[in-house]
Amino acid sequence: MRDRRVKIAGMGRALAGERLEFDGQTRYRLQAGETLLDLEERAAREALETAGMAIEDIDCMVCAAATPLQAIPCNAALLHERIAKGLEIPAMDINTTCTSFITALDVMSCMIEAGRYERVLIVSGDTASAALNPNQKESFELFSDASAACVLVKAGEEEGAAILYSRQRTWSEGAHDTEIRGGCGLLTAFCMNEENREDYYFDMKGKKILKLCAKNLPPFIHACMEEAGIDRSEVRLVIPHQASRALSVIMPRLGFPKGTYFDRVERYGNMVSASVPYALSEAIDEGLIRRGEPAILIGTAAGLTSNFLLLRY
Amino acid sequence: MRDRRVKIAGMGRALAGERLEFDGQTRYRLQAGETLLDLEERAAREALETAGMAIEDIDCMVCAAATPLQAIPCNAALLHERIAKGLEIPAMDINTTCTSFITALDVMSCMIEAGRYERVLIVSGDTASAALNPNQKESFELFSDASAACVLVKAGEEEGAAILYSRQRTWSEGAHDTEIRGGCGLLTAFCMNEENREDYYFDMKGKKILKLCAKNLPPFIHACMEEAGIDRSEVRLVIPHQASRALSVIMPRLGFPKGTYFDRVERYGNMVSASVPYALSEAIDEGLIRRGEPAILIGTAAGLTSNFLLLRY
Repeated sequence: MRDRRVKIAGMGRALAGERLEFDGQTRYRLQAGETLLDLEERAAREALETAGMAIEDIDCMVCAAATPLQAIPCNAALLHERIAKGLEIPAMDINTTCTSFITALDVMSCMIEAGRYERVLIVSGDTASAALNPNQKESFELFSDASAACVLVKAGEEEGAAILYSRQRTWSEGAHDTEIRGGCGLLTAFCMNEENREDYYFDMKGKKILKLCAKNLPPFIHACMEEAGIDRSEVRLVIPHQASRALSVIMPRLGFPKGTYFDRVERYGNMVSASVPYALSEAIDEGLIRRGEPAILIGTAAGLTSNFLLLRY
Repeated sequence: MRDRRVKIAGMGRALAGERLEFDGQTRYRLQAGETLLDLEERAAREALETAGMAIEDIDCMVCAAATPLQAIPCNAALLHERIAKGLEIPAMDINTTCTSFITALDVMSCMIEAGRYERVLIVSGDTASAALNPNQKESFELFSDASAACVLVKAGEEEGAAILYSRQRTWSEGAHDTEIRGGCGLLTAFCMNEENREDYYFDMKGKKILKLCAKNLPPFIHACMEEAGIDRSEVRLVIPHQASRALSVIMPRLGFPKGTYFDRVERYGNMVSASVPYALSEAIDEGLIRRGEPAILIGTAAGLTSNFLLLRY
């Protein structure tokens, strides 16, 4: 795999307006009248501003989200209407649930490398609150609604910025460990009744996921580090998906002790697809990752999917 | 844009089991006990068989569909469980609604060109019947449930197969002309009541779409042909999205007279994301496109999105 010469030119982020506390953990949820499109619009505009660009400079828009806003059209077309109406910018969705942003970086860096696009806007975000089950405490108290966005551009030869290595794995033994079964093609809204109502909520089998991760993640991450030819000591910061409070248990087991990875679970919880780009954006703003430095993005997602991406910022 | 040296190694297709007739037009819908995953599995297995490959040979699986089977996980993870359980093949969704297959060819050819993947399985298909409104005759009688699949591989230097040119445009003035508003994040299944029930059906504003297409398509197609440097006389066959019975009116206006494009609307109607790959697969099987010959894939999709892709088969 050769380096893909791309640069994160700017990022932006937005939090939902209602703030909640659960056992000292802060979460954010959409407030009345607010939709995910409002957050996505704010995050996208901030990313463009940080990059010193206008929407007219963008030649492709990607929504990298876990959940659909509508079954039709794709999320990117709805966001396009908010920020690019009247322009002809192509819009598409890329989805690997919680790690959609990492996948989108992976995919779009290849499109830029192949000369297909040059300046891409990637926007992540989900409305977790739309499907949380009040009877499932673990997931009900875990999620925040948020959005984060990134402008990814072709990097000059003299710039060091690049995506150096990326890998994804899907282990579908876990396909039903994280689900929203109802509302779409397999079990439509019209089929909802008193008996199956719970099928329309988000359903997470936390222990099963942890078990599958414990089995598959260590060899996957180990193989990635080795194949990428990078030692943990060389990595400035690891940005993991903020999956749950188990993060501080799992990361050391993957060889990343406290202080080497970014942990904001207490402050925001799991923001689904927005987790990784939101954390990356904060880490950049806080000077924890600087130009020319390597960083790793990793995460697990419903599927069960896992992504690993090594970039030089 | 340089050529992307990729080859369609095999294709497969599957039709839903219930056959209906509307005014001499044949349509197919899922029969009791059948789901889209059954069709996707059949199409995928046939594509692999035609390519002379096993699922173990595939290094990435893409579901290129318009509609979600579940809000979580992505469609590709659910199909993975059917055909790749126990393997680690990465699975992702790519979505530009009806033209998702063309977009996936575009995207994955860049990933292959960049050295990221080498043998990709792309599967399209939608359950149109899950959301058709019996009160909207035009759309109710238009759609079929189907799936089609394609194995896309890196082509050797000596092989002529390639994607030579591709373009996508999204005109979000049409974002609400083709919709399923309810069931997902913006209007959840829990919000359905007697007043808004129609919002959970597929809704198509046929005349508005035709008007927007009439304005935007001719200059788009003209610019693509010119930029691709190809004359209509050199193209062996055009495979358009089988959007509606208006196909035979629109295609000549785009410079493609009867006989130069593939039209199976009478036989199958609009198969949403499966339309283009299903038609391409049939055209190949019928000898209408042969190795080394150029073909064009075009289509419009909810968004409003339009795709153009020139390949050498």
